[in-house]
Amino acid sequence: MSSLSTEVKNLALAKIAEDLQANERKIVEANIADLERAKKDRVKLSLIERLEFDSSKLQTAIAGVMSLIQLPDPVGRTLSAMELDTGLELYKVSCPIGVLGIIFESRPDALVQISTLALKSGNAVLLKGGSEAANTNRVLADVIVESSTKAGLPEGWMAHLETREDVKAMLALEDHIDLIIPRGSNEFVKYIMNNTRIPVLGHAEGICHVYVDSDADLDKAVRIAFDAKCQYPAACNAMETLLVAEQVAREFLPRIKAQYDKAGVELRGDNRTRKIIECKPASEADWRTEYSDLILSIKVVRNVDEAIDHINTFGSHHTDAIVTENPATAKQFLGLVDSADVFWNSSTRFSDGFRYGLGAEVGISTNKIHARGPVGLEGLVTYKWKLIGHGQIVADYSAAKGKKFTHRVLDKECPI
Amino acid sequence: MSSLSTEVKNLALAKIAEDLQANERKIVEANIADLERAKKDRVKLSLIERLEFDSSKLQTAIAGVMSLIQLPDPVGRTLSAMELDTGLELYKVSCPIGVLGIIFESRPDALVQISTLALKSGNAVLLKGGSEAANTNRVLADVIVESSTKAGLPEGWMAHLETREDVKAMLALEDHIDLIIPRGSNEFVKYIMNNTRIPVLGHAEGICHVYVDSDADLDKAVRIAFDAKCQYPAACNAMETLLVAEQVAREFLPRIKAQYDKAGVELRGDNRTRKIIECKPASEADWRTEYSDLILSIKVVRNVDEAIDHINTFGSHHTDAIVTENPATAKQFLGLVDSADVFWNSSTRFSDGFRYGLGAEVGISTNKIHARGPVGLEGLVTYKWKLIGHGQIVADYSAAKGKKFTHRVLDKECPI
Repeated sequence: MSSLSTEVKNLALAKIAEDLQANERKIVEANIADLERAKKDRVKLSLIERLEFDSSKLQTAIAGVMSLIQLPDPVGRTLSAMELDTGLELYKVSCPIGVLGIIFESRPDALVQISTLALKSGNAVLLKGGSEAANTNRVLADVIVESSTKAGLPEGWMAHLETREDVKAMLALEDHIDLIIPRGSNEFVKYIMNNTRIPVLGHAEGICHVYVDSDADLDKAVRIAFDAKCQYPAACNAMETLLVAEQVAREFLPRIKAQYDKAGVELRGDNRTRKIIECKPASEADWRTEYSDLILSIKVVRNVDEAIDHINTFGSHHTDAIVTENPATAKQFLGLVDSADVFWNSSTRFSDGFRYGLGAEVGISTNKIHARGPVGLEGLVTYKWKLIGHGQIVADYSAAKGKKFTHRVLDKECPI
Repeated sequence: MSSLSTEVKNLALAKIAEDLQANERKIVEANIADLERAKKDRVKLSLIERLEFDSSKLQTAIAGVMSLIQLPDPVGRTLSAMELDTGLELYKVSCPIGVLGIIFESRPDALVQISTLALKSGNAVLLKGGSEAANTNRVLADVIVESSTKAGLPEGWMAHLETREDVKAMLALEDHIDLIIPRGSNEFVKYIMNNTRIPVLGHAEGICHVYVDSDADLDKAVRIAFDAKCQYPAACNAMETLLVAEQVAREFLPRIKAQYDKAGVELRGDNRTRKIIECKPASEADWRTEYSDLILSIKVVRNVDEAIDHINTFGSHHTDAIVTENPATAKQFLGLVDSADVFWNSSTRFSDGFRYGLGAEVGISTNKIHARGPVGLEGLVTYKWKLIGHGQIVADYSAAKGKKFTHRVLDKECPI
């Protein structure tokens, strides 16, 4: 996988897109079988919606595969080049991570998206989808495996797992699997993180904040606080807690409450908030809760320091925004809030691979090690050091022999 | 820590260097006490050598601190910049990882080196040294804490742990500690890796290979195979297994054996090797052993494919070299050997932060996630995404409102 040319990988992607199209009827029929079983099993409606994979969803998935062809190959990029001595050159070159283990709930589009992201980045992949979508996933995986191996990918580069026992076995293979990517509910991701020694790329929670500073432009603050909560409350980058500086609380809170009331947002405030606007009381548990719904906790704080402390204590290191016209305060907030994404005068909802222009999103990571925030294809590669010499040995550079390193930065690509 | 200016950090480093010098007598006396206790406890000689911290070792440590001042600040570097839309700019900016937990055996120089690397990279640090060096470490830690806080570092940025219970407690603090860096024997590093959920930067083993290809220049092969084994056999980047293509084995093996015999290297060969040169038999256990000594296992292989398979099966993903004049074979080897460092016609011993020109070495990592191979200061930083807007909200970019992203790469530094 790691030595595949960009051409072979792109041809395989084109072949997958073509074969998914050719197998449209088979795929849709398998999905109908899954949907019927789910309805018979009285699975809840929101899950059935995510399970659905009709012609239009297939077209979207195929368009996603085709768009991957346009993206630059993340493998084989020279990240740095240095002459250590004449005829001894060191290159840092991107390469695939190796074997990915990917586990996702219900949505069959995830199978298509993630297997093709793995392909483009030269990684082998083990995939396990939700059991509700077993028929759909099986057909999709069969098509992808068959058309990609026909197009020149090595046998066994992708395997489709079907049982929970398989997943359990996979999570224990720390010597053979390099990265686990879970997609699903917070509880699901947390379970995966707590049950493997393999590094996990993802986030278990998105407890995001907007802090309205004493120097905020309150028109901007109202727009941002409304968008961050209401534009898509189920998203991980939606705001869960609104922090308001005491100097502007009396003016700002009634204005934003009027907006939230129209949208049907349930408000839960601390004591100081409840002296200004009417709402339910917030407990400490609220500061730690990702509602993923039209519910918002509100706290009045003394200043930016208290806001930063609150966010670093109760947040999930995902995305947090400040609204202020004071650049020094913004700098302090962006510097000290310990989150993957820190925003000045913009909505937390911008935290997303597509909006960031990453081309394709592998996931959003709250890890500090490896990829952080929205992760594109570059999150599926690592690097190796390639040293190219002409027989050089270290003994010649010892004190006795006295050869010296030049350590000269080179402006060239790794030749092999 | 993360908001300290480069000036304050460099002033603190200068103050530490100055105060270490001023406390020379106190430090050396504490070390003498440690040495006396170790001799009384009949600690083995190699450990006593590492424990020793006399005036000349203190001078080396101080020179290391001074050289850190010259290195560029790894924090606050703009790694990428992109306009998402007019007045909405996204910056990827390097920042400290947060809290490091560092555990090392006996050598007190490690305490000075690692605490100052943490300082320069803006990380808080918990340090635990070997109990044999307790007196020396206590004096060194006291000097570093006192002079750095006087120079403006926040109270508590560094703490010195003294007991095994402290270490156990630290390894369980996965919500508060971001990275563990162990320094010591393989068994020690393996123990740490197996007893924490915190990411660990390091390597438990260095099972490195040299493969002498059928197209090798045998003069180069002899030089490289000798250097890789003999120049410093205790190093993690020394060769443990020599792989030789069958086409050149009959000519090459007697030549290299003559060299190894002079150096007193014990050879252990597979059956095909033993048909050509006299040596002890190698078992499968030899392929998995890091001797760290003048012992070498040798295997004759059919071709580069078998060499790559052997390395990926039995190696430790550290450093592996090929000797060949054939660029296509070298390309295959460097591409397919799944190790942090892959070398063409040069000795494995070059795998080292100083030789790589990294300025300072934090350690050598065989992880694939985060830093890989020799790791400099950049291994102690991560990044965050800073988005700077003027009140932009996501709703305006929805299908209904129709604003479009520009995703234009910017050539500028993050302004805050």
